[in-house]
Amino acid sequence: MTDYPISKQNKVRQLREMAVYDRQVVHEILNSGLVAIVGFVQDGNAIVVPMIYGREDEKIYLHGARKARVVRLLEQNSSISLNVTLVDGLVFARSAFNSSMNYRSVTVFGEPRLVEDRAEKLHAMRVISEHTMPGRWDELREPLQREIKMTGVIALHIETASAKISTGMPEDEDDDYDIPIWAGVLPLESRLTKLQSDDRLLEGVEPSAVVSAMQDSAL
Amino acid sequence: MTDYPISKQNKVRQLREMAVYDRQVVHEILNSGLVAIVGFVQDGNAIVVPMIYGREDEKIYLHGARKARVVRLLEQNSSISLNVTLVDGLVFARSAFNSSMNYRSVTVFGEPRLVEDRAEKLHAMRVISEHTMPGRWDELREPLQREIKMTGVIALHIETASAKISTGMPEDEDDDYDIPIWAGVLPLESRLTKLQSDDRLLEGVEPSAVVSAMQDSAL
Repeated sequence: MTDYPISKQNKVRQLREMAVYDRQVVHEILNSGLVAIVGFVQDGNAIVVPMIYGREDEKIYLHGARKARVVRLLEQNSSISLNVTLVDGLVFARSAFNSSMNYRSVTVFGEPRLVEDRAEKLHAMRVISEHTMPGRWDELREPLQREIKMTGVIALHIETASAKISTGMPEDEDDDYDIPIWAGVLPLESRLTKLQSDDRLLEGVEPSAVVSAMQDSAL
Repeated sequence: MTDYPISKQNKVRQLREMAVYDRQVVHEILNSGLVAIVGFVQDGNAIVVPMIYGREDEKIYLHGARKARVVRLLEQNSSISLNVTLVDGLVFARSAFNSSMNYRSVTVFGEPRLVEDRAEKLHAMRVISEHTMPGRWDELREPLQREIKMTGVIALHIETASAKISTGMPEDEDDDYDIPIWAGVLPLESRLTKLQSDDRLLEGVEPSAVVSAMQDSAL
């Protein structure tokens, strides 16, 4: 796949050696995240809100209540950005200056569009559901007309994006390697653990194979 | 502690029952997070970037390279917002509409100020370091003059904020409880695992007690 175009918006200026504009890398980070932090402008100021999302090719779908401020305002913004960041560990260097974190982060830029078409909206709702709970959509009853109406979906075509990935051990100043202090990495693992059943389950109902398979898996 | 004032910016309009304006709750979520997503305005559009932070009372310190775009631009914005979101689990309801996530999220609003005073800057660097690596600062050598110069620190006084917390089991439509499908929660645990030593460690150097104590701890 080709790279995203580099523009004033997405050009990484600091720690450039960690910048990635590759579509596949951007897609993989978006696939791994659960929540996107979306930024939009209200009265000249930036507002940030977390939103659940799903990706299909170069399109990101976001959803909220149809009447939510974020849905109304996203529609009015000609360009928005969103960020998904996964922290992978703490990096203990031999100085505070070089101490940092390992992470995968992506910032996406695009023009938001309110999805009004019923078929596209339903499709977007499926994409978002499949992003966090793969296989679940087909096990659930069809969404009701009322539920579709109450859901606000924003589609964002990825115009450009950049990823930043930091991995591995600290990089210290040459002189600092002589300091007798421990240095290294403490990994941070985000893991889905064990299913907890709702106490109003009908008797004998068990989790399906697709739901069970999500247990004990790292993000 | 008193609540934050409710303004047009921070008023939670959707799922109001989950909104919390309590300072202590906001502080606790900020204490638990590792990365804040900061939103600012550039050329009329919202840009979002992840930043490492620390909190002291009603002040949040953010840092980046002194010459970073985010540091230069934050300084020019009269109001910015930042969000810290921790996902705690996936909520499998009996319908797609009621399926969701458990999470703790806080959005903070305030006016950014570039920290120029050397003493305050050094203090802010310590607050940020202690946020992610408590006890580490005093074990490290003093920051060099050059390092302090190269670091850009933004101070944000919390003018207002809101938290949103979602916990527990799905809330389904009355009729849906008769559907014979599994429902419940799959918790997401974020855990610092086991220290990995840099292979350039001096012989015999071990992690200190404060660093070792961070192992095998949940965020």
